[in-house]
Formats: sequence, C-alpha cells, structure tokens
Amino acid sequence: MKRYLELDPWNIVENSFNDINNKVSESIFSLGNGYMGQRANFEEGYTGSTLAGTYMAGIYYPDKTKFGWWKNGYPEYFAKVLNCTNWIGIDVYIEDTKLDIAQCDVSNFSRILNMKEGYLYRSFIATLKSGNEVKIETKRFVSIVDKEIGAIEYSITPLNFNGNITISPYLDGDIKNEDANYDEKFWETISKQTGLGNAYLTLKTKKTDFYLCSAMKYDIFKDNAKVACEIEMIEKEKLVGNVVRLNLIKDERMTIFKYVANVTSRDFKIHELTEIAKQKLNKAYIKGFSKMAEEQANAWEEKWKASDIIIQGDLAAQQAIRFNIFQLNQTYTGEDSRLNIGPKGFTGEKYGGSTYWDTEAYCVPFYLSTADEKISKNLLIYRYKQLDKAKENARKLGYKKGALYPMVTMNGEECHNEWEITFEEIHRNGAVAYAIYNYVNYTGDKEYLTRYGVDVLIEISRFWEERVNYSQEKNKYVILGVTGPNEYENNVNNNWYTNRIAVWTMEYTIKVLSNIKDEEPKKYEDLIKKLKIQVSEVDKWKDIIENMFYPKNEKLGIFLQQDGYMDKEQILVDALPKENLPINKHWSWDRILRSCFIKQADVLQGLYFLQHLYDLETIRKNYEFYEPRTVHESSLSPCIHSILASKLDMKEKAYEMYLRTSRLDIDNYNDDTEDGCHITSMAGTWMSIVEGFGGLKVKDDILTLDPSIPKEWQLFSFKIRYRGFLIKVKVTENSIEITNDSSEKLHIIVKKKDYIILGSITIKV
Amino acid sequence: MKRYLELDPWNIVENSFNDINNKVSESIFSLGNGYMGQRANFEEGYTGSTLAGTYMAGIYYPDKTKFGWWKNGYPEYFAKVLNCTNWIGIDVYIEDTKLDIAQCDVSNFSRILNMKEGYLYRSFIATLKSGNEVKIETKRFVSIVDKEIGAIEYSITPLNFNGNITISPYLDGDIKNEDANYDEKFWETISKQTGLGNAYLTLKTKKTDFYLCSAMKYDIFKDNAKVACEIEMIEKEKLVGNVVRLNLIKDERMTIFKYVANVTSRDFKIHELTEIAKQKLNKAYIKGFSKMAEEQANAWEEKWKASDIIIQGDLAAQQAIRFNIFQLNQTYTGEDSRLNIGPKGFTGEKYGGSTYWDTEAYCVPFYLSTADEKISKNLLIYRYKQLDKAKENARKLGYKKGALYPMVTMNGEECHNEWEITFEEIHRNGAVAYAIYNYVNYTGDKEYLTRYGVDVLIEISRFWEERVNYSQEKNKYVILGVTGPNEYENNVNNNWYTNRIAVWTMEYTIKVLSNIKDEEPKKYEDLIKKLKIQVSEVDKWKDIIENMFYPKNEKLGIFLQQDGYMDKEQILVDALPKENLPINKHWSWDRILRSCFIKQADVLQGLYFLQHLYDLETIRKNYEFYEPRTVHESSLSPCIHSILASKLDMKEKAYEMYLRTSRLDIDNYNDDTEDGCHITSMAGTWMSIVEGFGGLKVKDDILTLDPSIPKEWQLFSFKIRYRGFLIKVKVTENSIEITNDSSEKLHIIVKKKDYIILGSITIKV
Repeated sequence: MKRYLELDPWNIVENSFNDINNKVSESIFSLGNGYMGQRANFEEGYTGSTLAGTYMAGIYYPDKTKFGWWKNGYPEYFAKVLNCTNWIGIDVYIEDTKLDIAQCDVSNFSRILNMKEGYLYRSFIATLKSGNEVKIETKRFVSIVDKEIGAIEYSITPLNFNGNITISPYLDGDIKNEDANYDEKFWETISKQTGLGNAYLTLKTKKTDFYLCSAMKYDIFKDNAKVACEIEMIEKEKLVGNVVRLNLIKDERMTIFKYVANVTSRDFKIHELTEIAKQKLNKAYIKGFSKMAEEQANAWEEKWKASDIIIQGDLAAQQAIRFNIFQLNQTYTGEDSRLNIGPKGFTGEKYGGSTYWDTEAYCVPFYLSTADEKISKNLLIYRYKQLDKAKENARKLGYKKGALYPMVTMNGEECHNEWEITFEEIHRNGAVAYAIYNYVNYTGDKEYLTRYGVDVLIEISRFWEERVNYSQEKNKYVILGVTGPNEYENNVNNNWYTNRIAVWTMEYTIKVLSNIKDEEPKKYEDLIKKLKIQVSEVDKWKDIIENMFYPKNEKLGIFLQQDGYMDKEQILVDALPKENLPINKHWSWDRILRSCFIKQADVLQGLYFLQHLYDLETIRKNYEFYEPRTVHESSLSPCIHSILASKLDMKEKAYEMYLRTSRLDIDNYNDDTEDGCHITSMAGTWMSIVEGFGGLKVKDDILTLDPSIPKEWQLFSFKIRYRGFLIKVKVTENSIEITNDSSEKLHIIVKKKDYIILGSITIKV
Repeated sequence: MKRYLELDPWNIVENSFNDINNKVSESIFSLGNGYMGQRANFEEGYTGSTLAGTYMAGIYYPDKTKFGWWKNGYPEYFAKVLNCTNWIGIDVYIEDTKLDIAQCDVSNFSRILNMKEGYLYRSFIATLKSGNEVKIETKRFVSIVDKEIGAIEYSITPLNFNGNITISPYLDGDIKNEDANYDEKFWETISKQTGLGNAYLTLKTKKTDFYLCSAMKYDIFKDNAKVACEIEMIEKEKLVGNVVRLNLIKDERMTIFKYVANVTSRDFKIHELTEIAKQKLNKAYIKGFSKMAEEQANAWEEKWKASDIIIQGDLAAQQAIRFNIFQLNQTYTGEDSRLNIGPKGFTGEKYGGSTYWDTEAYCVPFYLSTADEKISKNLLIYRYKQLDKAKENARKLGYKKGALYPMVTMNGEECHNEWEITFEEIHRNGAVAYAIYNYVNYTGDKEYLTRYGVDVLIEISRFWEERVNYSQEKNKYVILGVTGPNEYENNVNNNWYTNRIAVWTMEYTIKVLSNIKDEEPKKYEDLIKKLKIQVSEVDKWKDIIENMFYPKNEKLGIFLQQDGYMDKEQILVDALPKENLPINKHWSWDRILRSCFIKQADVLQGLYFLQHLYDLETIRKNYEFYEPRTVHESSLSPCIHSILASKLDMKEKAYEMYLRTSRLDIDNYNDDTEDGCHITSMAGTWMSIVEGFGGLKVKDDILTLDPSIPKEWQLFSFKIRYRGFLIKVKVTENSIEITNDSSEKLHIIVKKKDYIILGSITIKV
C-alpha cells in the first residue's frame, strides 16, 4: 500500500508531482463516458514515465497471438482495445522551448479529479531552464451529455517575463499500443483535412476496418477576450493541427478552448463520418466550454442522485467508494448492447479491454441497483447475441452440443491462450447463467427469460451435460480437468464451485422451462421446437443433478476446493513471512500451485452466489476454513469476503476487506495500478457496502435489508433502484432509515420484519 | 505410415525424387560423426522444400524465449543448437543456368545412405529447360577418423551437348535457424580469407562467443586427370569461395573433390583456429578422397563389428535396426564429456538439440552394451558436472536444498518454459538417479559411485525430501502437482511413477551410502563431511520410504497412473474412430487431458526400470490395463511396451511395437520426420531387441539372457559388450548360440540356467 494522494470526500487530489507516480495517476485520474475514455496524460506532452491512453468503446484489433508452445484449440488472435487518435494534444512553446514537465522545475502542482462534476483539473508553475516562469491551468472532460465530445480549457500565464508563446493544438494518429505482441501499429490514416482553426483526421484499423474520425476546433482568449492570432496550418503523415503564436506580457493569461468530436463507423456510415463529426463539433463549439461544463456537472449530479453512497466518520472509506462509483459510471452506461466492461475500463490497455466473467459476477449487481434495468439487461443481451459464437467455441473444442462462452472476448470469440484458463476455467459459463437468474430475481422481468434467457440457459446446460462424465469408481458424475476462479490451482478434478454451479444451472434451466410451460404453454411449445429440446436431455440433466459428486470434508463440515485439497500442507496466510507476499511476485509458479493458498476462494464465491440455499452454519464453517488460506491476490476476492463476513456478523473482517477492495487503486495495494484501474472489482466494492453492510437481497420478489454499520463509521447511506422504486437507506449504529422516494407503496423486509412504506415516506427502524 | 524408401539390408534407398518427401529424406539421409553433422541438403542448392542443417556438437545459442504468459521461475533463454556455416555448397552452372532440381526435369534419381561404409551417395540426370542434359553424381561423408573433416566428390557429365560448366565451391556464413524465436541471426562473421583453390571463414556466435573456423580446398578432375582451370575468387559479406570455369565435351566427366575442415573454439584457442584448420585441411587434402573413404569404411566396419544386429527373414526389420544403430553411432561417440544427445541428433533443429531425460532412460543402456564403458560413463559425468546448476535450478524454484536437473538443457540451465513440464516433470530427476544405478549394475564400476555418483544421488534425494509433503488426510507422504512422462495429463497428484522413482532414489542412495560405509569407511567419513550429510535427513528419507502413498486399484490389482485416474471415462484406443488418431493432431488439448488416453505409460516405464522388484503377475496386470489405453504418441513409448511384451511372452504385441519403434522415421509414422529423426528413441529400438527379444539383464553381477524370437524372423543376432567381454548372441526358433569373443571365461545365465563359457568359445543352448 502506497498512499500519496490526499483524502477528500469528492475529489482525488495529487498535490505534488513525482514522475514515479505519474503512470499510476494517469490511471486513477482517467476520464470516460462509456463511449470514450482518456487517461490523465498531459495535453502538452511529457517525456517522463507515461502510458498514452485514448480509447473508443468497442474499437478493437485482433492482434496476432503470442504463445510459447501451441496447443490445439488455442485462438489465433487476441482482440485488443486500441489506443486511438490523441485528441488532447496541445504543444506549448515558451520562447521556442517546448513545455515538458520532465524538463523543468515544477511547483504548486495540483491534479484533481472532480468526481462530483466529472472533470479533470491540473495546475502548476513551471520554471524553465531559461528562468522563465509560467503558470499552467487545465480543465478537461469527456461529455456525458454529448458523448462524442471532449473539451479542454488550457491556460498559460507568464509570471516573470513578457514573451512569445506558441501553442499547437493537434490531432495525432501516429499512435500505437504498448501492448502490441509484435510491435505493430494497428491504425492507418485514411484522410486529413486542415483549416485555419480546425482540423479533421480519419483513421481506419487494419483487419477490423473500424473508422474513427476526429474533428477539432478551438478558440484563443487573452484574459477574458477572444483574440485573433497568427495561425499556421501543420500537416504531417498522420497528424493535423495548427500553430498559433502570441505575445504575452507578464501576468497576462491566455487560454485555448479546444473542442473535439470523435465519431466512428460503429455508429455512422463511413462516408458520412467527417460530416457528422463536423456537425457534432460545431454544436459543441457553439454551446461553448462553460455551458458544456455546467451541463456536465448537472448530469453528474443526476448520476450521483441515483448512485451515491455516503459514509460519515471515515474519509478514506468515503473517498474510496465515490471513486469506485465514479469510475464504474464512467466506464459503462448501458446504452449500447454491443459493449461490455473490460477489467481496466478506459484506464489502460491491459487485459485487452475484453469481457471477462467479472461482468456477470460483479458488475451486473451494481448496475441492477443503481441504474435503469435496461442497463443490466443490455449486459445480458450482449451474451445472448454472442450465443452462436459460444456454440462455435464449444464445437471447436470438440463438444457436440451446447455453448461455452469464452473466458476473454471482444466479439464473442475466445482470445486467451493459456490452456489452463482458456479451456479449463469453464465456471465462467456458470456465471453467465447465474447473471440471468440474478437479473430476473431482482427485476422480476420474466419476459426476458422467455425471449432471451432460456436460450442461453439451455445451451449452457447442454454444455455441462457433455462436460461431466460418469465415474464408475465413484458412482457419481464428476467434472475433471478444470480451473476454478482460484487460478492458483490448475487442471483439478471436481472443483466444488464448478460442480455446484453446473448443477445449479441445470436446476435453474429446468425450473425456468417448467415455469414457462405452466404460465405460457404456447410459448413453451415454440421454445421446444426452436431449441429442439429433447425429453432425454432434460432427463439426463436431472440424473446429473441427483448424482453429482461434491468433494467435502465431513469432519470439518466444509466443501472442498477440489479433490485432494486436504492432501496439501495446511498452512495459514498469517504464518507466512510477510516478505513472501504477494506470493505471485515471490514464489515460483509450481510452489504456488502446490500450496494450499487460494487467490480467491471458490467455495465462498459459490456460497455467495447461492447463499439462499445454504444455512449460516455451513457458510460460517467454510468461511472460517477458507478465509485464513486466501491471499486475495485477485482484485475480485476481498469484496466477496467482506460481504460474507458481514453476513456472518464478523464486523472487523468485513471492514478490513472493505478497505482492501475499495482503496485497491487509490492506495495501489497490488502495485499494479499504473496499468490501469481495476474497474470490474470496483463493482464488488459497491456490493461490499450495499449487499454486505446493507444486507440487500431480493427473495421471493421482496426487497430485503439487514444493515449493520462498521464501528469505524458514524453513518452510511446508499440509494438503490428496485423495480421502479428509488429507495434511500441511511444507517447509523442505532438507527436505520428507509426512504421510499417513489410514489407507489413499497413492501420491504428490514431486519427480518415486513414493512410497507408509502410513497415519499421515510421510516425509521 | 508412408513408405517411399526401398527395403535394403545395408542402405537407405530413395529411387525417385519428390519434393514433398525431400525434407523427410534430408533428415533420414543425414550424416554425422559425433562432432559435426549434416542434413542431406544438396550441394548445388535447392529452391524447393528444404531445411538447411549443418551442426557442430556443443555449439549453441541462448535464444530469447517466447512465451504467451510469463510464469515466475521460467528461464529467460532457450538454448538452441545452431545451424552453422554451410560447407557443402558447390554451385553449378550449365551454360549460365544454375543447376536446381526444383527447376529442371529429373530422372534416374537415386539417393543412398550407405550405412555399412558411412557415406551419402546421390545421382540423377537433369534435363534443363534448354534441353541440355547432365548427369550428376555425388558422394560425401563426414569423417569418423578425422572428425573435423568433411569431404565431397561431385561430378558432372554433359550427356547431350558440349559446353561451359561453371562450378563454385564456397563456405557460406549467411545462415540462420528456422527455429529462431525472433527471426534473428545468431552468427557474426569474424574473418574471411580467399585464395585460389582455398578459402577460410571464421564466424562467432553472438552472446555465447563460440568461434567456428571453416577451411576448404579442392581439386578438379576431368575424367581421371587433375586439371588446372580458370579460377576466380569470390567474397561476399559472409561468404568466401572460388568460381571455376571449364569446357566439357559430351560424355566428358568432371569431378570436384572438396575438402573441408571445421574447427571450433570449444577445442582450440581462438587465435590458433585458422592455423589449425589449415593443418587439418592439408592433412586431409594430402590423404585424398579415396584414401579417406577407405578409412571411413574400415572405421565403420569396426563400429558394426561391435554393434550390428542381424535379423534374417524380415528385411524391413533388418534395415530399420541398422538405421537406428547407424544414427546413434553418428550422433554420439562419448569422446567429449561436455556433450550429450539431443532428441534429433544432427538431423534437425527441433527440441533445440538439448539434453532430455531420454539420455538416461534410453540412450545409456545402448551405449553400455555396444561401446566402451567410458562412453556411458561420460554421459553420466555430463550430469555430474552440471550438479551445481541443478542445485541452482532448485534454489530458483524455492527449494532450500537438493538439486533439480533441468527438463531441457544445453549447459545445465533449464531451457523449457511450459510450467506443466518445466516445473512439474520432476520425474527426470529419477531417471538421472536410475542411470547411475543402471551403469553401476551393468559395469560393476563401484568407484564411479564413490567418486561422482553419490554426490548426485544425495542431492536428488534431498530434492525429493523437500518436494514431498505429508498429507494429514492420508497419513502418508504425497507428491502433488506433477506431470509424469505421460504428458497427456498435467499437474496431477501422486503420479505412481514419480512417487515410486522418488522412493527408489532414496532407497538406492541409502544403500549406496551404507555400502561405502562398510567397504570404504574412510571415504565414507570424507563424504559425510563433504556433502554435509545429516543423520536426520537420512532418517527422513527412511520415513518417506516407509510412508509414501501409492495410488492403486486393488480390485484390478494395478498401480494407478495418478490420483483420480479411475474417475476418467474408461475407453480403449481400439474403440476410437481411426480418424481421431493421433489425438494430438485431432483433439483440443483439454479433451486430451480429460481423456484416459496415455501418451506413454508411466506405470509401465516404472515397471520396466524396476522389473527386478516386481513379479510377472503384477507386470502383466498393469500391462494389460495400460497398453490398450496407450496411444504411443511419444516416440519413447513403443519400445518399453515391446520389451515388457517380450517379458510377458506376448510375442505378437512385442513384434508390433518393435516395428513401430524401429521404422518410426523410415516410414514417417508420426508424420514429423521432416523436422529430424527421433534419435533418442532409436536407442529404445535397440533395447527392444536386446533387452526385449534377447532378454538381456544383469543381476547380481551376472549377465542374464532369456531370448525368444518373433515368429516373423528366421534368426536374429546381436553383440554386446559386458565388463570387457564381447559376446555374440544368435537366436533362431530352435536354438540359441552364445559366443564369448574374449579370452576370459564368462559366467552367464541363459534361460535361467548357469553357463561358464571359455574364451573364444560358442555354446548352443
């Protein structure tokens, strides 16, 4: 843990500049609007440590895969999120010296991510080698109102001299991914157009043929007056821009407002791109920076109204949860069902920006409770649309039927190529099925099931049917050769979580089919025909459900991670010398594999998903066994432990795990935030509060809460959406207030008691 | 299986040219002398399918490793055998048209590997596009008498025209490895020298700084008279040579004799290399081609005297065993204890030319019985010398003591980077220990143990001690997370073979220590001090020996491949549709892993090694269980099955497996001979005959035979060396003849009866 940022309830604040933190800050201070995103790179450029990152949602490139030793079934490509046209660039020359923080003395540095209003602010005083001092202030945002628009206010004030200032706003298509397997560039330039005061640049990706047109326009002000300047146009092979020269006298402040529109062939016809970019740009230009900034603040206010969590008495916790909510809202808006949520969102290239099971297991609950239900529905539809590719994927691996969703994907095709993950982490299929249950249970949207969900459930159940095999030895069905969420063991037999989620999927599928049959017999008939459902296969599922093998230790009363887990030397994490942690940085891989240490606890993940099916005692015994063996070296781990600890009334553990998940990036716990923030695990942070401390669940169509507050907090409050209701929950040590902010009456269970709350009424419990 | 070569007892014969077979033939017709080797590339060059291959033993390059996803503990380099200076090159121009079989009509083609005399012959008639016909005849060898020398006779006869012939003998250093991870060239040119009639080229490897000086000289003959010609010198950046122009009239035959010496900094000081190359070259040049060819034939005759196996009544079997013996003799002579045997020998680049456990498990027995005992001793010393690096390797993976020999190595350092192999195929350590036992048991050379072997045994036992862990659950020691020789399962627990060989190593080590203590108490004291042997560690080994867990199936009376093997769906190979084979080409990797199919049977490998410790019934039950589940997709598999089948008197199976192992390359069974021949498994072929059909073993210092002949054969005979004796064994259906070709009397057990055979006497049994 390395804390160099200030504590603040609404802002992330960096008050001194240090190159070694810069890449971490670039990740943390990232901006995004679900459509595009931008790391906190400097407009004027920087020759120190930096990772350039401009991303457009859904634009990817199938990079030729890199492998050590080929295995049959590996995908040939790894689809990567692309670093796109650098649209923030504004080169600055002070008397012909290029401004570069790496090359001058910096004082009064301040970088602020204003989460309340959704912008990035930076200011500093630079003392150049010449002795010239300038003050720089910048503010920028990517609009959540006009999603194609980014806007920058950049001002320069000479503090101790009169002189020439040259500024050059530009669009640069000469970009590459740091994560390019063979150091290739993925973009080619299609067209350029440069005018006085504007420029246009259209790029196309190789292979995938995505077009991106960026358009820029700007205004120059001296103090508060717009000025006309001497302008020169510049055009390089892949760059367009202007050069503007001004004379400034000491303390005179010049400001450039740069407006950019980025439009892509994902949304518009290729031949219209430039025209549409122009239109959108002009609209923004006319609106102007202040007006747009105001709209941005208002729009964020709306978002916070729906999703803010207040924590009193613990500034670190307060800041952290807002940061998590802010980043989640920046990453995914749910407007585009072709999109999903990469583990790093718009904050870095790592993990290729692809979709993992994180979405279903962690993100869906967040969006279910904080956004319109169509948003989580869109996340589900994304997988529904990729069902055919998941079936293809299963065929490719030799399965005669069923669907295997990819472990990592951009377009439905598998990207990853470690056999123990690609082929063996089949539990992901369970998470996809579980998310359907979770969505329907929360929203009550049964129509989703009939229309989309059941298709997915059937194909996943078919996969499980073929994937299990009958062990003559055990007289049970077994699942051999899998890797569970705990990637610190590979190719194991009978991973409890995988076996359990497989059976659960088949149980749920059968139940869904039976409900449709009862409630909509006609649709049921159609379904049977469409999906060619055989009685024999459903019978097989029932047989598997009844005869699945689960590894257990009866003496300890626990489910086993996998066959043979108890043969491992049983040591607790506390007994490890501190310098061994994280073990993934200090131990050889085989030592990790052989050890009993768990990256994230599969059994607990299963008990979290299926907590309605297990008694507290079972959960407690498993928790007490696995938590001391878990090293939490997956960002997805601590939140589940926090939630279960809350459920088990282990308050200190719940709080410890909450801090670990919520400040993972701000405090750079795992020393890897420079690659980008852990976006998907941020949803887990939210879950730690709302499901953990808040005890939220929906059971038999009734919203249920069971709040308890960590002793470190005076108060915490959160808001949730639930089937059209907007509900506020405020918890202190001695009281629970529930406000029904809707007009309808709400049936709710709090601390095991039923309440009916009328519209716009607050109750205290 | 694809048979395009002719059957012949002493030659490999290709009687028509087909480009699609060329790379396979280049492998099969390779020449070598243990010091250098050469694929059967064409002297005049070839623009069709070809893999250039010129190798110098022990010259390697640490190529930067390629990996998909890095794992802690992986080596950063993969040491590769290098393609070296092309010294065979003789460009030929017929009236200015370059001779290239790919560009002309070829008739009367013949390529012959004369195994009796150790040379490669090729002849053909080429009809050029111009209509000109030339006859080409070439003969070449790498000398087993003067190891640095290669010699070529290359003759050209115009058949239907008078005209200009230009020939250009050269040395070309502009070579690269096909198997270069990043397409780099590994050599740089250090010096060049070109004269009239000679040329010298010195190259140096990057990083490893091996110097290779090649020197060439030549003579030109017209018919049988040496002629002086117009000569031009050529020098390119990395090439030196001459161009010689002649006029030939129809049916006039010109011949060039090209002599080359290759010397390296492995054997000589760098500044002397050119001088030494010149000396060696001149010596060869003076000797002349015919004389050298004659010496070569005589030297091979000696080799055959020691190692030939005769099979009558089965030409395919006869040819195959000679091919296997020939290639083994070409690959390793045992003169240089820094060298070892790469799986492809001098026939290809694949597997990097590195050392695998193949050497200990398969090659040592061959050299023990067919060569002076110093040769197998040198193979053992090779590992002894690398003991420190094996200890380092263990440290690198986190072991506090002991040694883990690398899975793949050139210089003692690990090269391979698949975690399931690199870290988990620890059974290799057992094979290294077993080879010591095997050597001492065969030769009676107990001094080897005290001086070298015990150090290795102690460190390997220490490794096992740390690698096992005690399972509270089983109340036994277990070995978790390993891959056995059967690489079709990875990261398994309690692989029977690994557990057994680990315990065997500790048993043997204790026995060796105890013998030394009894027989040489002073040396024992020194050893205890030198190796810091603790009573406590030996006690721990004893505890492990007594309490090791072995997976078994009591009902079937078999040892289990690993924990959970019986949970797999039990199918037999015969039940698989033929088009599924080989499964490694038709199934996804995870399907292979989950299946019960075995690449090579670990349990049988263990029962082969330790057959003196198990009764026939045990071996039979295991054989009958595992053989039908084994797909033999490792070249090392069928020989072990053949030997055990012989032991179990399953004659048909033994013969089937013999043919499979012996003609693996000649018939290109696994469709991969183009990469090179399976040299190490050839030793297994020899074992199939001598240990299998011959029933050879040494028990309590007495040589034992138990011959039986396959019904397809009329007679087979082999020769073995044993503790100074040279013994001939001739077996027919009704008789066994044993000749003691030495002067001492020999005590031998044949078919369980004791015989004393006086010197130079043959007995019939």
